[in-house]
Amino acid sequence: MTKRIAIFGSTGSIGTQALQVIAANADKFTAEVLTAHTNDELLIKQALQFNPNIVVIADESKYVKVKEALASTSIKVFAGEKALDEVAAMNCYDLMLAAIVGYAGLRPTLQALENGKPVALANKETLVVAGDIVMQKALEKKVPLIPVDSEHSAIFQCLVGEGRNKIEKVILTASGGPFLGKKPNFLVNVKRDHALQHPNWSMGAKISVDSATLMNKGLEMIEAKWLFNLQPDQIQVLVHPQSIIHSLVQFEDGSMKAQMGLPDMKLPIQYALAFPHRIPNDFPRYDFKKPATLTFEDPDMKTFRNLSLAINALYKGGNMPCILNAANEIAVFAFLRNRIGFLDMTDVVERTMDKIQFIANPTLEDYYETDGEARNFAASLIQM
Amino acid sequence: MTKRIAIFGSTGSIGTQALQVIAANADKFTAEVLTAHTNDELLIKQALQFNPNIVVIADESKYVKVKEALASTSIKVFAGEKALDEVAAMNCYDLMLAAIVGYAGLRPTLQALENGKPVALANKETLVVAGDIVMQKALEKKVPLIPVDSEHSAIFQCLVGEGRNKIEKVILTASGGPFLGKKPNFLVNVKRDHALQHPNWSMGAKISVDSATLMNKGLEMIEAKWLFNLQPDQIQVLVHPQSIIHSLVQFEDGSMKAQMGLPDMKLPIQYALAFPHRIPNDFPRYDFKKPATLTFEDPDMKTFRNLSLAINALYKGGNMPCILNAANEIAVFAFLRNRIGFLDMTDVVERTMDKIQFIANPTLEDYYETDGEARNFAASLIQM
Repeated sequence: MTKRIAIFGSTGSIGTQALQVIAANADKFTAEVLTAHTNDELLIKQALQFNPNIVVIADESKYVKVKEALASTSIKVFAGEKALDEVAAMNCYDLMLAAIVGYAGLRPTLQALENGKPVALANKETLVVAGDIVMQKALEKKVPLIPVDSEHSAIFQCLVGEGRNKIEKVILTASGGPFLGKKPNFLVNVKRDHALQHPNWSMGAKISVDSATLMNKGLEMIEAKWLFNLQPDQIQVLVHPQSIIHSLVQFEDGSMKAQMGLPDMKLPIQYALAFPHRIPNDFPRYDFKKPATLTFEDPDMKTFRNLSLAINALYKGGNMPCILNAANEIAVFAFLRNRIGFLDMTDVVERTMDKIQFIANPTLEDYYETDGEARNFAASLIQM
Repeated sequence: MTKRIAIFGSTGSIGTQALQVIAANADKFTAEVLTAHTNDELLIKQALQFNPNIVVIADESKYVKVKEALASTSIKVFAGEKALDEVAAMNCYDLMLAAIVGYAGLRPTLQALENGKPVALANKETLVVAGDIVMQKALEKKVPLIPVDSEHSAIFQCLVGEGRNKIEKVILTASGGPFLGKKPNFLVNVKRDHALQHPNWSMGAKISVDSATLMNKGLEMIEAKWLFNLQPDQIQVLVHPQSIIHSLVQFEDGSMKAQMGLPDMKLPIQYALAFPHRIPNDFPRYDFKKPATLTFEDPDMKTFRNLSLAINALYKGGNMPCILNAANEIAVFAFLRNRIGFLDMTDVVERTMDKIQFIANPTLEDYYETDGEARNFAASLIQM
């Protein structure tokens, strides 16, 4: 029996790498559902190669094109955001890979959990925005939520078999991004293309910019809080420019466990798809002699202020991470379109966090409203 | 209910540290059996403090002294090597900590396994000499054998929860010992006291010398082969002078897991006593900023020839590791008494390996005979 995978966000960086893993392990996995936001061409190509049961194109204007391209196949084609939720509620798949970028991934993920389906979670915003609700749902339905982010996959791998042994702290490692060691007088002039050049990891545009600003690490701290049921002060960030140690757990006996390897997203993707099993592959292995030195330092939170904003949101709780995330999505989007500068992103996030009403115990509806308000306000700042 | 611990070798470095762990966790552990080779004074002191059910002094000439010192207590006192086996066969304890140094630890360990008792194994020579027989016994009796050596504890901790996931290789880290980077022209003049000064670990005399010659790492390779059911070429050694990463496992998906921390034997001892649980403690924690750099290099096997002799024995199998170990025990003993030089130890081992008859599939009796012959021959070399 193969495991039937529903890839929500199949045309992005995680989605395409997941399809490589599936192609390489056709005896273990089939791609049952593929969904894309707007990239109809790649979605069609993927569908013709993997012959899924269902494809969804979220952008309804592309429906006819996808439908016609797949007319000679038995693949069902749906369109629209709503169709994502409907497909997530179906029984035709065994595991959802939630790889939709940003806040848009929240609803289908919740739907999959409600549906009792295990989720391999590549969308950190889902937990950043509404981690309490998502984790509660996973707990209630007794389905595993397996992280795909390399740092959280590392921690997850270190925790298997530890039962109820208590975590003292987790340490999320950070490469430091392309601007490690730079100061504001340099960053003020940074442009899109430079920010997209991550030194170690090959990733999508949004997360690459978030890595350059260290917002990504802040979002990961919030994600870790929910995934591993931690207090904010149990979560630390350590800059490790070689990106070989992907993260660490320290247990209450002082023992630490780390997961390590070359920076290659295919490994945590494969692990999440195959969990609890590991499957052999020919990914390049890390050779300890290149580099033979692993270094560690504290993050420069004075320069990379996004990280301290995220830590504020982590400690504040409530809807503050939702506000942070919404403002950041708008800011990164504007930066990628050369509408605002690198350091302006932080100002947009900070001003939005100051402006939007704080709610200590938000409902899911509160999160949806907060998200909309924060986006509108952040957008208004950019248009000024 | 406390776990009743039988410490075989309670006056050595591992034994005394284990008693510290037991004292700090009196709600979880009691010291039920204490045994010593010749150190009657410390054994008496320990017995008066921990009030065990039984003490054994292997050196029968010390029996009367121990017996009289404990006359006012209800502690049973036995003497002689044979008493070790007899006590190991009793039902009064829940877990044996096998901390007798050298080959002498083999019989009581086998007896404990035969008796269905879990063993926390701090005596690597037991597996080096007769790993096939020991592991077979543990398997047959379905009792866990929990390593205490920091490297093997690290690997063991990385393997929990991995089920049948296959190991691609293990990497045993080595500090390199006090003579890392030195060449034969330096080593030829090295004396006992210098060899005992390990840079990172506080350990007994025998293992400190073995660390200085790298024989310790070779013995650990053989130990790892048996503990984790590996082929020789799945076991690598990596010099890591900071001793923070205690060892690593690479799985067949390329993912590596490492166990890390400050070099402190109390941690693996506590882990082995408490397994599968971890218990809180106040041992110092590793701070990644001191040192902030972890380095790795290949061992210098041309200078530290004991490691290549051990690797030869690992690949050769049969009784060759037993020969290696016996000759090494004699050589280290002679070095500690300033009878031979640092580099002479290697010659003693090499010549003994060349001389003693190789047996491909030895029985336990063969091992006992091989051990005796190898010791006699090695001793004869030293007396020349």
